[in-house]
This record gives sequence, C-alpha cells and structure tokens, in this order.
Amino acid sequence: MEEIQFWIGIVATMAFAVTGVLAIADRGVDIFGVLVLGLITAIGGGTIRDIILEIPPFWSENQIYVWLALAASVATFFAESFFTQPQIYRWMLYIDGFGAALFAIQGATKAWMMGFGLPVGPVILGVITAIGGGLIRDVLAGRKTLIMSHELYAIPVTLGCSVYVLILNFTPQYAIEGSAFCMLGIFAIRAAAIHWDLHVPKMFITKTR
Amino acid sequence: MEEIQFWIGIVATMAFAVTGVLAIADRGVDIFGVLVLGLITAIGGGTIRDIILEIPPFWSENQIYVWLALAASVATFFAESFFTQPQIYRWMLYIDGFGAALFAIQGATKAWMMGFGLPVGPVILGVITAIGGGLIRDVLAGRKTLIMSHELYAIPVTLGCSVYVLILNFTPQYAIEGSAFCMLGIFAIRAAAIHWDLHVPKMFITKTR
Amino acid sequence: MEEIQFWIGIVATMAFAVTGVLAIADRGVDIFGVLVLGLITAIGGGTIRDIILEIPPFWSENQIYVWLALAASVATFFAESFFTQPQIYRWMLYIDGFGAALFAIQGATKAWMMGFGLPVGPVILGVITAIGGGLIRDVLAGRKTLIMSHELYAIPVTLGCSVYVLILNFTPQYAIEGSAFCMLGIFAIRAAAIHWDLHVPKMFITKTR
Repeated sequence: MEEIQFWIGIVATMAFAVTGVLAIADRGVDIFGVLVLGLITAIGGGTIRDIILEIPPFWSENQIYVWLALAASVATFFAESFFTQPQIYRWMLYIDGFGAALFAIQGATKAWMMGFGLPVGPVILGVITAIGGGLIRDVLAGRKTLIMSHELYAIPVTLGCSVYVLILNFTPQYAIEGSAFCMLGIFAIRAAAIHWDLHVPKMFITKTR
Repeated sequence: MEEIQFWIGIVATMAFAVTGVLAIADRGVDIFGVLVLGLITAIGGGTIRDIILEIPPFWSENQIYVWLALAASVATFFAESFFTQPQIYRWMLYIDGFGAALFAIQGATKAWMMGFGLPVGPVILGVITAIGGGLIRDVLAGRKTLIMSHELYAIPVTLGCSVYVLILNFTPQYAIEGSAFCMLGIFAIRAAAIHWDLHVPKMFITKTR
Repeated sequence: MEEIQFWIGIVATMAFAVTGVLAIADRGVDIFGVLVLGLITAIGGGTIRDIILEIPPFWSENQIYVWLALAASVATFFAESFFTQPQIYRWMLYIDGFGAALFAIQGATKAWMMGFGLPVGPVILGVITAIGGGLIRDVLAGRKTLIMSHELYAIPVTLGCSVYVLILNFTPQYAIEGSAFCMLGIFAIRAAAIHWDLHVPKMFITKTR
C-alpha cells in the first residue's frame, strides 16, 4: 500500500514538473527559470504546508522528489515538442490531475495526523499541497493564477478534502477506504473537466465590470 | 476588555473578508476564488506573522475566524449588489480601517510579548498583520498591490505601530492606554483619508518615467 | 575574517536596498513603498531561508541590517538623481552582484552547518538567500521577475552554490578557501555579465509563441 503511494507520488511529482514547465514555456523562459519553476510547481505546495505545520519541508528528508522534478523539468525543456503533442499533453493533464488528487489527500492526511487545526486545518492544507506550487509558479512567471482561471481544478480538490475530513471525523474506521474514495472522486471530476472541457458555470462567477 | 477585543476582532475579520472580496469582484472570480481570496485577505496577514514568530497560525486554535471569513465571503458573493451600494461600501471601508488598526496593534502586541526582534520586530509584524493578507490577495488576483497604490493605509498603520512600540519601551506603565491611543490614531488618519479622499502627497512619490 | 564578512554584509545589504529601490523607482512608488520594497529586497531572501530552516529570521537578532536597509532606501528616494547617474548606478550593480555572491555562499553555509537537506538543501537555500528578496519585491511591485528576465544572475549563483557544496562534501578541509573561491567565481561571472552586457544565450530560452 505504502509502496503504491510512493510510486504514485513519484509519477505525480514528475507530471507536476512537466505540466508546470509547459504552462510557462510559451513565455520565453531560460533553462534556469525552467528548473526553478518546474521545481516550485512540483514541491512548492508541500513546502508551504510543511512551513505552516512547523516541520522541515518533506524534500529535506528525501531528496528524490527534488531530483526527479529537476530531471523532468530539463527533459521538458529539451523535449518540448514531444510534450506539446496534443495526445501526450492530454496524458500529462490527466496524470497532473491524479497528482493533484493524491497530493491533496496526502496533505490533508498529514495535517489530520498531526492534529492541526481540526477540522478545518486539514482541508486548507490539503488544498495548499495540491495547488500552492502552481500558484507560486504563476505569480513568479507573471501569469494569471489558477484562482482566476475558472478551471474545475481547485473546486474538486476542496470538495474531496472536505468529504475526506468528514469521513475521518465521523467514520474513522473507514479512513483508508475514505482516502481512496476521495482521491478517485477528485480525479474523476478533474478528468471529466479535462475530457469534456468543463469550467465553473457562469452563475458562480462574479460579473466583470 | 478582552471580550471587547474579541468582538472587534470578529467584526474586523468579516469586514476584511467583505472588502477583500469586493476588491476583486469586478474581475470575474468564481465562487471558489471568492472563498479563497476572502479568507486570505482576512487571515493571511496574521498567518505570515505567526510563521515568522514560529508559532502555529492563530486560526488553527480558534477556527471561528475561518468560518466567519468564509461566511462573509459567500455572503458578499451572493449579495454583491448590496455591498456595492455607495453608502454600505463606505461603511465597510471604515470598518476595514478599524480592523486594520486593531490587527496592527494586536500583531505588534503579540510580537512584543514574545520579545521578538525588539524594538523593530513588533513594528514589522504589526504592519504585516494588518496588510499582509491584502497583499497576497492582490498578487494572486493579478491586481496592483496596496504598496503601489498611494493609499493612506499602510503609512498610518506603520506610524501607529512605531508610536506604540515607543510607548511600550519608554512608558510601559501606559501599555493599555497606549494601545487604545495608537489604535484610534491609526483609525483616525485612515478615516480622514476615506472621508476626504486623501492620498500620499506627490512630493513623497517617485516620478514615473 | 569574520569582521571582513560582517562589513561586506553591511555594504551588500545597503547595495541591495539601493538597487532594490532603483529597480522600482520609475513606477511612481511612495516613500512607504520605497521603505518596504527596499527592506524586502535587502532582507527578504534571508528571511525565507530562515523560515524554511525553522529558525528566527536573522534580523530579529541583529537589527543593524534592518536599519541600514531602511536608511539606504530613504537615501535612494531623496537622492535618486545621484544614484541613477550611469557611473554610480554601474558601481551599485557591481556591489549588488558582490552582495548576491556573498549572501548565496553565506546562506549555503548556514544550511550546510545545520545539516539541512544535504546535499541539495544548501544549494536551494543559497539561491533563495541571494534572489528571494528581489523576487518578492518584483511580485509586489507588479514587475517582471528576475526568473523571466534572461539576466545572468541566478545562474552563476546556482553554479557557485553547487560547486561550493561539492567542495564541502568531498574536500571539507578546503571549506574556507572553497567559500572564497565560489564567492569570487559568482561575482566574476556576474561582473562579466554587467561589463559586457551578457545574457542567457537564446538556445537556452524557450520559444515564445
């Protein structure tokens, strides 16, 4: 079980780095910027989470995440034309969505087990783990952030973390099943949004003036 | 006394969330963005302060602030036309100014009592408590930040915190009176700026080229 | 030796504040913004480093850095025409480059001595110490960040920190010589970039679309 999680985490970290680099590749970024922004996308969210939890950032103990994120970023730089093929890019988006689901539930679990700000803390930290890195990347790259994008991305993550915390609170005996269920639920909504190009409905968006 | 502070804090948190949401409502933000940005405006500054002080964020111990900020954000989303009425919006600005004064002095007090970086630390952390959340909101929303706006907002906050630290340092027996005096002083300048539409004078602004 | 480092640190802090203010002076910033952004440029990177290391920010123990950064910022505001003279500005760029080299190696050393995330941690924290403050300034000022600029600035910093960590790891008996060598190496590349107006070569930049 834990080994599966580890391998999913590895794949998700690399997918985050790849999609993170692709998101800003059209802006003329140099190789250093690619490394920094790919790395931040992949490990930034978990780093903010750990800072708020007052523990050392996860990558200071196991640097495999840093190396893989850097390797994936460089690979994306040199093989950009491969990754921007519609078919491959679509695959990356799905893996990225799965990574977001995994990171969100992992982040919420970590906060829950430390008893951080129950019950709201694990939801907030789960969301931060999943989307925090992308937000920093967008801010540093001068790009519109996810929060302003109307993507169905942060909403399933937040819903999934909330349901997960309810399960942990009211039926703790189903913690493991609950984590799998919420992870798949987040991924299912995200995948549907990718597949059918769904966005946040207009009635939930403020009017621009 | 403490109860008064608590209730003022409650009102100020909600006012921060309301003005925080109104500030970005004209950009077409979805309901999730409204929740996140309202929450960040309300609790972001105090969170940075607590991270720098190396203590758990204040909202991890008393989540009432999170719930109220979320509630105020949702209410603002659905009742935007109410809050944008000139009269009501003006009220919100005054309450927001009072909240900034309160948060600044609270933040400086917390840093002072922990002996953090005396004497400069409490001033810096007081200012961060009052304006930090708004800064993160503006950055994530792609909006010009307060620092570039020439508003008379951060200046009274900084002056008030500085005077307060001088009082704590040289006449500690007047700590309570001093905190009330500085809070009201900050609010008075801010209220005057709102009432007469005052901004930072041109001679204190660099020339754009 | 330590005294030399101290004085270089003092000069570098002030140069960071001066170049930090000059970088945003053409945007119409008020005196408060100048103080905040000058201060953040000078001490922001070290603050993030210390937050990640879970220790109190360095300026909470020795406030000389805060005072000097504030003094340099105010001086730059009132003597902008002096500092923007081509000859003087050029001098500032060189001192800023030397400050970046010094801060990077100091930051890496601090992380190394705390055993933080060896071997990758000291490199990451060295880079953050050197460029983190400038990044926050640019984000708050709505300016294109260094990461998107193709300057030869972060790359020599990263190279220097990496070589330094290799030296610490494989030939620790040359730690002191190594730190001086890497500091000078970073500065040499940066100075060459200023002198000959070198930038990151096009082959290392993604194509804008």
